[in-house]
Amino acid sequence: MSNTPAPPGRATSSDLEIDVVYGPAPHGDLGDPGGFPFTRGPYPTMYRGRPWTIRQYAGFGTAGQTNRRFKALLAAGQTGISTAFDLPTQMGIDSDAPLAAGEVGKVGVAIDSLADMRVLLDGLPLGEVTTSMTINATAPVLLLLYQLVAEEQGTPPERIRGTVQNDILKEYIARGTYIYPPRASMRLVTDLFSYCGRELPAWNTISISGYHIREAGSTAAQEIAFTLANGIAYVEAAIGAGLEVERFAPRLSFFWNSHNHLFEEAAKFRAARRMWARIMRDRFGATAPAGQRMRFHTQTAGSTLTAQQPENNIVRTTVQALAATMGGTQSLHTNAYDEALGLPTERSATIALRTQQILAAESGMADTVDPLAGSYYVESLTDRLEEAAGRIIDDVDELGGAVAAIERGFPQREIEEASYRASIRVESGQDTVVGVNRFTDGAGPDVEVLSVDPALEAAQRSRVREWRAGRDQPAVDRSLERLSETAGGTGNIMYPMKEALAAGATLGEVSDALRRVLGVHRAR
Amino acid sequence: MSNTPAPPGRATSSDLEIDVVYGPAPHGDLGDPGGFPFTRGPYPTMYRGRPWTIRQYAGFGTAGQTNRRFKALLAAGQTGISTAFDLPTQMGIDSDAPLAAGEVGKVGVAIDSLADMRVLLDGLPLGEVTTSMTINATAPVLLLLYQLVAEEQGTPPERIRGTVQNDILKEYIARGTYIYPPRASMRLVTDLFSYCGRELPAWNTISISGYHIREAGSTAAQEIAFTLANGIAYVEAAIGAGLEVERFAPRLSFFWNSHNHLFEEAAKFRAARRMWARIMRDRFGATAPAGQRMRFHTQTAGSTLTAQQPENNIVRTTVQALAATMGGTQSLHTNAYDEALGLPTERSATIALRTQQILAAESGMADTVDPLAGSYYVESLTDRLEEAAGRIIDDVDELGGAVAAIERGFPQREIEEASYRASIRVESGQDTVVGVNRFTDGAGPDVEVLSVDPALEAAQRSRVREWRAGRDQPAVDRSLERLSETAGGTGNIMYPMKEALAAGATLGEVSDALRRVLGVHRAR
Repeated sequence: MSNTPAPPGRATSSDLEIDVVYGPAPHGDLGDPGGFPFTRGPYPTMYRGRPWTIRQYAGFGTAGQTNRRFKALLAAGQTGISTAFDLPTQMGIDSDAPLAAGEVGKVGVAIDSLADMRVLLDGLPLGEVTTSMTINATAPVLLLLYQLVAEEQGTPPERIRGTVQNDILKEYIARGTYIYPPRASMRLVTDLFSYCGRELPAWNTISISGYHIREAGSTAAQEIAFTLANGIAYVEAAIGAGLEVERFAPRLSFFWNSHNHLFEEAAKFRAARRMWARIMRDRFGATAPAGQRMRFHTQTAGSTLTAQQPENNIVRTTVQALAATMGGTQSLHTNAYDEALGLPTERSATIALRTQQILAAESGMADTVDPLAGSYYVESLTDRLEEAAGRIIDDVDELGGAVAAIERGFPQREIEEASYRASIRVESGQDTVVGVNRFTDGAGPDVEVLSVDPALEAAQRSRVREWRAGRDQPAVDRSLERLSETAGGTGNIMYPMKEALAAGATLGEVSDALRRVLGVHRAR
Repeated sequence: MSNTPAPPGRATSSDLEIDVVYGPAPHGDLGDPGGFPFTRGPYPTMYRGRPWTIRQYAGFGTAGQTNRRFKALLAAGQTGISTAFDLPTQMGIDSDAPLAAGEVGKVGVAIDSLADMRVLLDGLPLGEVTTSMTINATAPVLLLLYQLVAEEQGTPPERIRGTVQNDILKEYIARGTYIYPPRASMRLVTDLFSYCGRELPAWNTISISGYHIREAGSTAAQEIAFTLANGIAYVEAAIGAGLEVERFAPRLSFFWNSHNHLFEEAAKFRAARRMWARIMRDRFGATAPAGQRMRFHTQTAGSTLTAQQPENNIVRTTVQALAATMGGTQSLHTNAYDEALGLPTERSATIALRTQQILAAESGMADTVDPLAGSYYVESLTDRLEEAAGRIIDDVDELGGAVAAIERGFPQREIEEASYRASIRVESGQDTVVGVNRFTDGAGPDVEVLSVDPALEAAQRSRVREWRAGRDQPAVDRSLERLSETAGGTGNIMYPMKEALAAGATLGEVSDALRRVLGVHRAR
C-alpha cells in the first residue's frame, strides 16, 4: 500500500477527516437493538417487525384541496398523514388579517377555525391513521382543533395518535416562526405535555427538530448537539413544571434531516440515539426503556435540492432516504424533485412516495436491523460524531442551557458560521454541487410546477368572516377572557383554549388572547 | 427481544435467509485493499486515488449519430466510451444482407467496414480515452477495425486502451449472439488474447460477463458462479494454447450486473473478488497480484426497469449504482430511466450520467475504501454468497468445466429455473415490483422516447455497397482466402483478419470466411 501517492484529504460536513481505509478498531457501545443505549435502534426487530411509516408532508391552499391530496396519498399507499400549515396559521394570524395578505395557503394549508379543521380531516379515519402536524407557536391550537374533530368523529382519546412539532426553541435558532418570548413559549410547551399526559395518552407531544437547524446550514454534529440541547431544556422545563420524567419521556420524539453524505448521515442517527439514551438515563434518571429510546421522523434535505436539472433531485433524495432507513428512522418524508421550483405537483409527489416504496419493497432496506453495524467506517463515524456533538452540548451547558444560550445568540452564530464556511466551499469549487457549480448545462428547468390560485385568499377571507358571523359572540368573548386569565396565572392554558375553540374562536383570536398576556418576541 | 412476535422470513435473490439481527461473528479473509485475497478491492486507495470511470454504454443508428452522442457524453463529463453494436454487427452480418433487414442500427450502431469505424471514432482522442466495446462473436473484427483507425490517428499501440467483451461462453448460456460452435469460438478468444499480448499490451482482452446471466434471471450466486466458471474455462483454454498465465491474466476483466438488493449486491462484488483471487492463485498458480486481482465494470440491472411509472427507474438505478460503488467497481454504466420503453434520449442519458456524478461528488461514495467492511450483515452475506457460488462451480467442474457444461445445457437450465421461480414470486405478489404488481396507477407512461429513423437502414445499405464498389476486389478476395486458410490450420486468425479488413473486407465477408471453415452453431 506504500507506493501509492497520498490521495487528497477528505472530510465530512462536520469536519471529521476521513481515512483512506478503515480497519477493525474498538468502538462505542452498540447494545442489542431495542436495548440500551439503543445505538442499533429503538426496537428489537425494527423494520422486520414493522416497516417505517411513509409520511409525506403535504398541505397547500384550502383545507379542501389538502384533504383531497391526503386522500390521494393514502390511496397511493402512504401510511401516515403529515400536514404543512401556511405562515399565517403558524404565526397565529387569521387569513383575513392585513398581515396575512399574500401568504394565505402558500407554503401550507390555511386553518383559521374548527370549520377548516373539519374540512381538512373530512372522511379520514382518525382512529386508524397517525397524523403529524408541523406546527410550533400555535401547536396547542392545532392539536385542540384536531382533538375536537376527532371527538366529533367519535374517536376514543387513546386512539387519537400523531405528533405536533411543538419545538419552539429551534424556531428562535433557525426557523423564525415564534410568537411569544422564549420562556413564555416554554410554558406553553409544558402545558401541552401535561395536557396530553392526562387527555391524549398516545399523542407524541413534541418533535424535537434538528431538521431546520440543518437546513439553516449547520453541520451534522451541530444538528445533533443543538437538537439534543433543546431536548434537555424541554425535559428540564417539564420537570420544573412538576411533570414526572417516566411519564412524559416516552411521548418525546425527534425529527432529523437526512443530508447527502450517506455514511455520515447513517452514523448521525445512530450517534444521536446513543447520546439521548445516556442523557435520559444519566442526567434525568429515566429507567424505563420507553423513556430512553429515541424515536424519530426524518425528512430528506430540502436545502440540497437544486432548481437546475431538477430530476437530479430524485437521485439525491434516494441517497438521503437510504441514509435515513439505514439509520433506523421510524417515519420518513422524501422530498419531491421540483421543490426547489415550487410546490410539488401530484406527479412529483407520487415519485417521492414511490421512492420510499421501492426502498422498502425492492432494495432490501427493511430486511434486517441496523445493516451497517460493525462497519469499521460507520462505527468510527458514529463515535466521532458523538464526541464532536458532545463537546458542543458541553458548551451549551456552560452557557446555562439551551434557553440561555439561545437568548445570547450562541447556536444562531455557530450555525451561521458553519453555513458560511459551506457556502465558501461551494463557491470556491472545493465542494461540488452537480448542475450548479459543475456539470452545468445551458438548458433551464423545464418542469411543470404547481401554483396556488390567488383567488383562494379572497375565498378563505370570506370563509373566516362567515364563520365569525355565525357564532354565539358573547360566549366566544367570555371564553377568550378566561383563556387570558389562565395565561396570566399558572393554570394549564390548554383547557380554556379548548373551550374557546369549541365555542368558535379563531386561531388568531386565541393567539391574540395569549399575546396580550405573554407578550411577543422580537429578534435582536 | 423475546416478547416480539417472530417477523416473517426474508431471503435474498440467492435464497440466503436473512436474520433479523446480525452481530459480531468470525468472517472470511478480508486482507488489505490491494492485497490478497482482494476482498476489499483491487487497489490500495481505490476511489481516493482515482474515482471509478463513468462509462455510459451508447450506440444507435449510424456511426455518425453515435459519434455525436459520444462527444456529447464526453463534454458532459463522462470519462470513458462504451459502444453498443446492432444485432447484425454482433452476428457478423453486413447491413445489406437480407438477414439484417429491420435490425440495422436498432439496438446499437451499425459497423460494416473500416469506413464506418472511421466515422464512429472521428475526432475522439484515442490515445486518451479508454473504449469498451460490447462485442463477442465478432470481437476480433471490431478490435482490429478500432486498431486500424487508432493507427491512422497515429496512436502508439501501448496507448490503445479499452476492452472488448469477447466472452462467447455466456452467449451460449444467456444472450444468444454466437456464430461458431463453442470450441471453435474458444480458439478465436485465445487468438485474440495472444494477439493483444504481442500487439496491444494495454488492451483488456476479455470482459467475462455475469451481466447477461443475471439479466436472464439468475440469482446473484449463480451470476458469480457461472461467470467465474467461464473465466476458468478461458484461462484453461489460454494455457492450452500455450499462453503464459502471468502474462495474460492481468488483462482479464469482468463485467457484473448490479441488481436491486443493495447489500446482497455489494457483498456479491466482494465475494467474487475473493473467489477469483483464490482461483487464480490455487488453480493456476498466478503469483503476481496483477493476475489475481479482479477488476470489473458494472452495469445497473436493465431487467429491473419498468415501463410503468418510468421515473421510478431513476430510484432503482441510484440504489444499484450505490451497490456497485460500495462493491468497488472500476467503471460503471447507469441505465437511463426510459430504457424499458425505447432507446435513451439525450435527456434521459444525461440524468443517468448525473446520477453517477452525484454519487461521486456529493454522497461521499468516493471517500474511503470498501466502506461496508466489517459490517456484520455484509460480511455474513459475502461469506454465504462465496459458499453458495462455490458449490455451483463444483457442479460445473464435475461436468468437465464450463464448455462441457454448456454443451449439456446445465447453466442454461439452472438459470431458467431461477428465472421461473422469480417470476412466480412476482406473479403471486410475494415479491413486489412497485408500479407493476403493487402501487400501480391507471396512467400509462408519458415520456418521449427516441426512435431510429427507418430511412437509416436504406442509407447504411447504400453505404456498404459503395464501399465494396470502391475496393481493390482481387486484393480483398486474396486476403479472405488467406483468412480461411489460417482458420483451417492452427495459426492466429487475427493477423490475416487485420489484413483483410485493411484491404476493405467487410465484417460480413470476414465472418463468412470463418463460417466456411469453422461451421455455425445451432441451439438444441
